[in-house]
Amino acid sequence: MDPSKQIRLGEIVLRLGGELIGDPDIAVRRIATLQSAVAGDISFLSRRRYRPLLDSTRASAVILQASERDATALPRIICDDPYAYYARLSALIHPAQTAAPGVHATAVVEPGGRIAPSASVGPHCAIGRGARLAQGVVLGPGCMIGDDCEIGDDSRLHAGVTLYAGCRVGRRALIHSGAVIGADGFGLAMHEGRWIKIPQIGGVVIGDDVEIGANTTIDRGALDDTVIEDGVKLDNQIQVGHNVRIGAHTAMAGCVGIAGSARIGRYCTVGGGAVILGHLEIADHVNISAASLVTKSISAAGTYTGAYPLQPNRDWGRTAALLRNLQTLAGRVKELEKAIARLSGGE
Amino acid sequence: MDPSKQIRLGEIVLRLGGELIGDPDIAVRRIATLQSAVAGDISFLSRRRYRPLLDSTRASAVILQASERDATALPRIICDDPYAYYARLSALIHPAQTAAPGVHATAVVEPGGRIAPSASVGPHCAIGRGARLAQGVVLGPGCMIGDDCEIGDDSRLHAGVTLYAGCRVGRRALIHSGAVIGADGFGLAMHEGRWIKIPQIGGVVIGDDVEIGANTTIDRGALDDTVIEDGVKLDNQIQVGHNVRIGAHTAMAGCVGIAGSARIGRYCTVGGGAVILGHLEIADHVNISAASLVTKSISAAGTYTGAYPLQPNRDWGRTAALLRNLQTLAGRVKELEKAIARLSGGE
Amino acid sequence: MDPSKQIRLGEIVLRLGGELIGDPDIAVRRIATLQSAVAGDISFLSRRRYRPLLDSTRASAVILQASERDATALPRIICDDPYAYYARLSALIHPAQTAAPGVHATAVVEPGGRIAPSASVGPHCAIGRGARLAQGVVLGPGCMIGDDCEIGDDSRLHAGVTLYAGCRVGRRALIHSGAVIGADGFGLAMHEGRWIKIPQIGGVVIGDDVEIGANTTIDRGALDDTVIEDGVKLDNQIQVGHNVRIGAHTAMAGCVGIAGSARIGRYCTVGGGAVILGHLEIADHVNISAASLVTKSISAAGTYTGAYPLQPNRDWGRTAALLRNLQTLAGRVKELEKAIARLSGGE
Repeated sequence: MDPSKQIRLGEIVLRLGGELIGDPDIAVRRIATLQSAVAGDISFLSRRRYRPLLDSTRASAVILQASERDATALPRIICDDPYAYYARLSALIHPAQTAAPGVHATAVVEPGGRIAPSASVGPHCAIGRGARLAQGVVLGPGCMIGDDCEIGDDSRLHAGVTLYAGCRVGRRALIHSGAVIGADGFGLAMHEGRWIKIPQIGGVVIGDDVEIGANTTIDRGALDDTVIEDGVKLDNQIQVGHNVRIGAHTAMAGCVGIAGSARIGRYCTVGGGAVILGHLEIADHVNISAASLVTKSISAAGTYTGAYPLQPNRDWGRTAALLRNLQTLAGRVKELEKAIARLSGGE
Repeated sequence: MDPSKQIRLGEIVLRLGGELIGDPDIAVRRIATLQSAVAGDISFLSRRRYRPLLDSTRASAVILQASERDATALPRIICDDPYAYYARLSALIHPAQTAAPGVHATAVVEPGGRIAPSASVGPHCAIGRGARLAQGVVLGPGCMIGDDCEIGDDSRLHAGVTLYAGCRVGRRALIHSGAVIGADGFGLAMHEGRWIKIPQIGGVVIGDDVEIGANTTIDRGALDDTVIEDGVKLDNQIQVGHNVRIGAHTAMAGCVGIAGSARIGRYCTVGGGAVILGHLEIADHVNISAASLVTKSISAAGTYTGAYPLQPNRDWGRTAALLRNLQTLAGRVKELEKAIARLSGGE
Repeated sequence: MDPSKQIRLGEIVLRLGGELIGDPDIAVRRIATLQSAVAGDISFLSRRRYRPLLDSTRASAVILQASERDATALPRIICDDPYAYYARLSALIHPAQTAAPGVHATAVVEPGGRIAPSASVGPHCAIGRGARLAQGVVLGPGCMIGDDCEIGDDSRLHAGVTLYAGCRVGRRALIHSGAVIGADGFGLAMHEGRWIKIPQIGGVVIGDDVEIGANTTIDRGALDDTVIEDGVKLDNQIQVGHNVRIGAHTAMAGCVGIAGSARIGRYCTVGGGAVILGHLEIADHVNISAASLVTKSISAAGTYTGAYPLQPNRDWGRTAALLRNLQTLAGRVKELEKAIARLSGGE
């Protein structure tokens, strides 16, 4: 989006490591895929299936792992993990946009808060009583920050993020549009034929270096807090129930739903559309596959899956009918075993 | 969030019932979990597994069911359902926040409407022509209310709720941020290779005492209305299609999707991530488990489930391959039965 | 919502085709279902199961297919596809609402852009530097349009739509409230125990005649663009990952999730709650059933399903336990086959 600066290959390896094969004075200006790169771009090869594109790419340089060092004559940087190298290089070439400090004239700021002079508050924001925005905080247009919220250094909220009262966000957070942090948890008790609402008086505490996707919702706790630890990355449209705790450096793809009081470990990954029930614990380094349902605690690291395989619709209809009657099939197998035993005994 | 008031145990049982064992003059100020309670707090025991915490809690009083009356020497309130009691007590101790009446200077109100003097309209709201806000209605900042909408007494819309034109919301509704009520239903007809949009000219009618979660969407009807009956509770990120009717006192957890023209009964519950197809009927008192798909009408009360069990990924791969070939396995069983019949006959 | 105009049956068939049986001077004012129609309404029969309602409807006229031409004595229009006819008639009777041109006084417009004089910008909008709104564009209240966005002729964004910088929307788009277009794709690489964010520097390109539902999110590309082709229709709460391409005239129901770099064909349909994994291709004219998971490319047109059948909870528990142990059952069948072979050979 920004005009990006030009950078020499020699400077890249100086800053990010790796071995350069080629002229250090060649400069690149942009990262691009092998397919879409033009002169002046640097590209990378992270999946073997794209290797044939090395021959046709018009990139000025490429990032490769050691096993591919002779796969091209192009100027190249050799490193352990080209994808991670690309990520770091991209962050170098495309730094986050800055915003002019100050509070836009149309923003409404209630008294008693503290907005750092270096913070930037966009048009049509509304900031509640006693809210604190630390240095370098950027609020896009239309952010609604409840009373007594705290947002740490250099955190950025894109347009239209809502924080209910009393939420705390750490440093360097990146929160995308439409995210809602701190709405009431879903706490109800049935009493005489009606649902009674349980006031949700806990808060939400979000650590440092957390990214929260567009339209993701994180509910406040019922009594204690909902906690998102450092380095957690949440994609779009995720629902985090009240009193959930997500361990540090766990990443979740879009549309995941997590019910109340689940405790997810550190360095976990959760695939898109997975559902995690409440009041359970998931150990560190657990990977849940997309569209899987977790109904019980998981105590051992590893990958877990529970998704119905896709079939042409007609086959599915037959398979699903058999599945629904799996007890009958199992019963027939049992009968067969008895018959065999009789026959074998009778020989 | 609010400084909560102190209340004597004697007053609690006077107002909510139950039997008090202990000094009625002991006062509590806050509800807390057994684990996090400190002096001055009241706690409760609703799940047997937390019973060991009774010994170590620092709460000044606890709420217990009759079977646990001797489980502690702490001052205690004995009742039928400690969870419901806690809910009612919490509502007593933590009443909903009030808001100053009046329309914020930055709100835009089109002519022809009627906003009760006791209503509160937050910053950056936009209220369409002919909209009516009854007494005690509170709109958080950034709410967008379409033309001719009606919102009943004491309903509260948190920041950033959108109502399209002509929606009607009952009394004491609680609608959370990012909810969108009355967007067009998904009505399309294929004609000569293109989708034609079917204008969605029905409305949305929401009863009394309804709660709607953050980023939940309820579409307007195609011709007739979409209807949410009294006492319905919807969690976050739920999608309600056009012309759906949800019966009174039904509760749904997050991320549920309901397709058009489904009719859900009263006192149902739907677990998180469940999907309900359209043009079907679900009886009263039906419970749908999380992540289940409902493809047909359900006429009998009860609990229904359809979720693939989670397995370590390697086991899942094998199981899923077998499942996909369940017809083959069933065929083999049939062959075995024939062979056994032959052998048995041949004996 | 709008007072709709009255139209004669003769004029309807003149404009939309079909055969009129009855007085061409009869006028109708509204479309309604057979059940709710009153005098002055026109109705239609598109599903055989509703045929009994023909006898009791109070509609002044009905739309029928040829096979039903004698099913009623009411004035009637005979056509090939009553549902598509209804769609076209409804669009005729209920044209989209217009909005007064001009920029609302409370909207904030950064310099360098180009807003057509016929465009309408609602209250509390914020429009970034260099954004271009073509003729007839309507922005509801609270829309946030990033720098350098382009929106084509006659597109309408309802209240509270967010476009990040650099997104391009074609002509006649209809985007519903809470939709977020162009948020960062979910691009991360693990490096020394921490997730590094990969800057998302691609854009989003949306074709003509696209509808995007409430709270749907479409992420910007990592390097290249995310592309939504002409005539695509997306329901509410859909998540489209970075670098996805959705082919022309494909329609998706609510709550679908699509992971990064998936390529969906033209004229596909995707049922509610389906999940499509990334880096795969789906051919044209593929229908994915609701709640199904697509893990691999699909190269042949047709309908594909992968959803666990719903059962009463007790049956489900037994079935799921058997399913989890399907390897054991298959092993037992194999043992039986060996035993039979032995017995048969030993005869």
